[in-house]
Amino acid sequence: MSKKSSSVTSSSHPGGVTSPRGFRAAGTTCGIKASGKPDLALIVADKPCAAAAVYTTNQMPSAPVIVGRRHLKSGTAQAILCNSGNANASTGEQGERDAIEMCNLVAKAIGCKPAHVLPSSTGIIGRPLPMEKITSGVTTLAGTLAAGEKADADAARAIMTTDLVPKTTHRSFKLAGKTVQLAGIAKGSGMIAPNMATMLAFLTTDADVSPALLKKALQLAAVASFNRMSVDQHTSPSDSVLILASGAAGNPKIKAAGKDFDAFVKVLTEVSFELAYKIVKDGEGATRVFRVRLVGARTEKEADKVAKEVINSPLVKAAVHGADPNWGRITTAAGYAGVKLDPSKMSLTIAPPDGAGVKVYAKGQPTKLTADQQAKLNASMKGTEVVFTLDLGAGKASVEWLGCDLSKEYVSINADYTT
Amino acid sequence: MSKKSSSVTSSSHPGGVTSPRGFRAAGTTCGIKASGKPDLALIVADKPCAAAAVYTTNQMPSAPVIVGRRHLKSGTAQAILCNSGNANASTGEQGERDAIEMCNLVAKAIGCKPAHVLPSSTGIIGRPLPMEKITSGVTTLAGTLAAGEKADADAARAIMTTDLVPKTTHRSFKLAGKTVQLAGIAKGSGMIAPNMATMLAFLTTDADVSPALLKKALQLAAVASFNRMSVDQHTSPSDSVLILASGAAGNPKIKAAGKDFDAFVKVLTEVSFELAYKIVKDGEGATRVFRVRLVGARTEKEADKVAKEVINSPLVKAAVHGADPNWGRITTAAGYAGVKLDPSKMSLTIAPPDGAGVKVYAKGQPTKLTADQQAKLNASMKGTEVVFTLDLGAGKASVEWLGCDLSKEYVSINADYTT
Repeated sequence: MSKKSSSVTSSSHPGGVTSPRGFRAAGTTCGIKASGKPDLALIVADKPCAAAAVYTTNQMPSAPVIVGRRHLKSGTAQAILCNSGNANASTGEQGERDAIEMCNLVAKAIGCKPAHVLPSSTGIIGRPLPMEKITSGVTTLAGTLAAGEKADADAARAIMTTDLVPKTTHRSFKLAGKTVQLAGIAKGSGMIAPNMATMLAFLTTDADVSPALLKKALQLAAVASFNRMSVDQHTSPSDSVLILASGAAGNPKIKAAGKDFDAFVKVLTEVSFELAYKIVKDGEGATRVFRVRLVGARTEKEADKVAKEVINSPLVKAAVHGADPNWGRITTAAGYAGVKLDPSKMSLTIAPPDGAGVKVYAKGQPTKLTADQQAKLNASMKGTEVVFTLDLGAGKASVEWLGCDLSKEYVSINADYTT
Repeated sequence: MSKKSSSVTSSSHPGGVTSPRGFRAAGTTCGIKASGKPDLALIVADKPCAAAAVYTTNQMPSAPVIVGRRHLKSGTAQAILCNSGNANASTGEQGERDAIEMCNLVAKAIGCKPAHVLPSSTGIIGRPLPMEKITSGVTTLAGTLAAGEKADADAARAIMTTDLVPKTTHRSFKLAGKTVQLAGIAKGSGMIAPNMATMLAFLTTDADVSPALLKKALQLAAVASFNRMSVDQHTSPSDSVLILASGAAGNPKIKAAGKDFDAFVKVLTEVSFELAYKIVKDGEGATRVFRVRLVGARTEKEADKVAKEVINSPLVKAAVHGADPNWGRITTAAGYAGVKLDPSKMSLTIAPPDGAGVKVYAKGQPTKLTADQQAKLNASMKGTEVVFTLDLGAGKASVEWLGCDLSKEYVSINADYTT
């Protein structure tokens, strides 16, 4: 760990996981994927640092989730090793032994404790990991760890499964006068649903944050981003958001709630929302993104329940795909969310992402639209992104969810995945 | 109401809603559908009789559901009028006035109380009903009411929306030595999900049953049939199962729980399950049916929760479409149902509907399959129906759910419905 990692972000490079000071990364092809595409990524901090995670709520967690949870009890970690192409899920005791072995391999290669490595796997479920390939892959990765554009791109590519594009984000901001960086990569595409749905996101920051506050910040950010998007409502057994905070920025350590904590949470939420947006936009077969702005709910919990049903309704998703302003599907999806509704107080507006919309439903019935409004409505539906604002007229709570359309391509991709 | 209705079922006719004694029916085209297909059906009992319903749990019920609930408080009804092509849902006060007018029209045409008519509508949401078409349609129907094969078929056709085939069922059985008949028609296709999802079923019987026991029997039957199927998890605002019991069979009136009640519930459940099966089989774009036999659950409620998630998972549905034995999607869908699971006690078997299956998962990990077993597994997945038996190993409760695959055709049908 003697190599100094760079903190410089070139003007042409938008920044990646090694932009925050104190991190290096690498990606390689170790042969797990039959396609020969990159399938193993490593992110390493110069020294053990604060770490936190939000893991899947699935009751059948994958082996790396089980092992990662155990390793994170200390709040400290130094490396993340992630393979794509095989999820190491529903693989029983052998799977757990393999996840532990992934950590041992990294520990040996970079000289850290095995308990300071967080394993992660994504891909096909129910097949044993090809450990000999991972073993040689880790050796390659350890020899190519670096900071900079290439390392960032290699790591982002190596965690992809059916993703069409790598997903990276980066921000610089000030904490108590010090410049702090926060960056992340993510993969998504299928099995994407709330509560750490089928997605991985790995975040790095050089902010100095205590493990307890880092955990709290990540939970707050995840609730308002990764937990409010859905491609196909299938919460995966693997999904994980991991963050490492090197502390290299030299800001006064965040140890308690307060102004600095709030500023950190704000940027962490923005970064998480941006990655969530990129995941939804690149959802399997997706051609359009839609947002559900659920306003006027009694509580945030009720707002989430209603928005989630609208986001996941195959009928709504198909209507978005067809640019069909069939708004009855939205109001009726709201109706089966298990939340008491009063149709006479509700309204629905359909809008483009950047402009005023058309109110199509108010007080329990359709509004009368002029030809102009109808044209505007049709145009909104045909955009690459459309916003549905559903007002329940019951209170002041509001949430925003992200979803994507349901296309024939989604069916094609998923009808023939293992065979 | 002086015309005598027939109780004879010809040997070539499998039986329909007018097979039970005391009923007549008719179907016609009144012009609601642009396609010119039949869109108005009427079922009439010779006199007011015991009636019961199970209506949608959607919080945005359609106008006919609101009016029907009110009319059924008496436990007595004489007619069901159903139009297809327009759901009269999300139509506010005008919608409710129109649903009431539907009842008035029938009452005037056949000479009964408006409160003894149950209205029903299915089709597009959020558009006012074309009442002048319905008015002239009711006159036509009243003039053609009859018993027999043609009337049964006309009524079954007139309630269809995107259904490809009419759905009818009929049983004869004995109650205290008397021959009793029970029949029904149903429509489904899209917006089909548990809790009176987007479906209509109208049942007739000549059994003599008190309104209270008829209601209880229908609830018991619905729980084990219509509430355990899903095409697309979208519980519609319109869905209704209605039953009229003429009492013309002359059996000792069923007024309390006991042998006769149990026998009646048994056949009613069979009939309901058969209609549910037909709805799923004809689900929009469906090419395959799959059953989830969820066994070994702690409680029936937990079994339902888990089975429902598996039935609704787009990833499971796409795998069924592609005949892909990607069983990890089944176990992980179970994992996000909000039920505590112990993977080490679980197993999953995939089977054809009529034979032994292959256990693909046991004790938290994949089983090792021989080439023969792999071939058998692939053959099971390729059949028109496949059965997934998921054993949670936690208790003795079990349920069976019905679902269908997710095809490109489903997307085509639903991407362009209103426009």
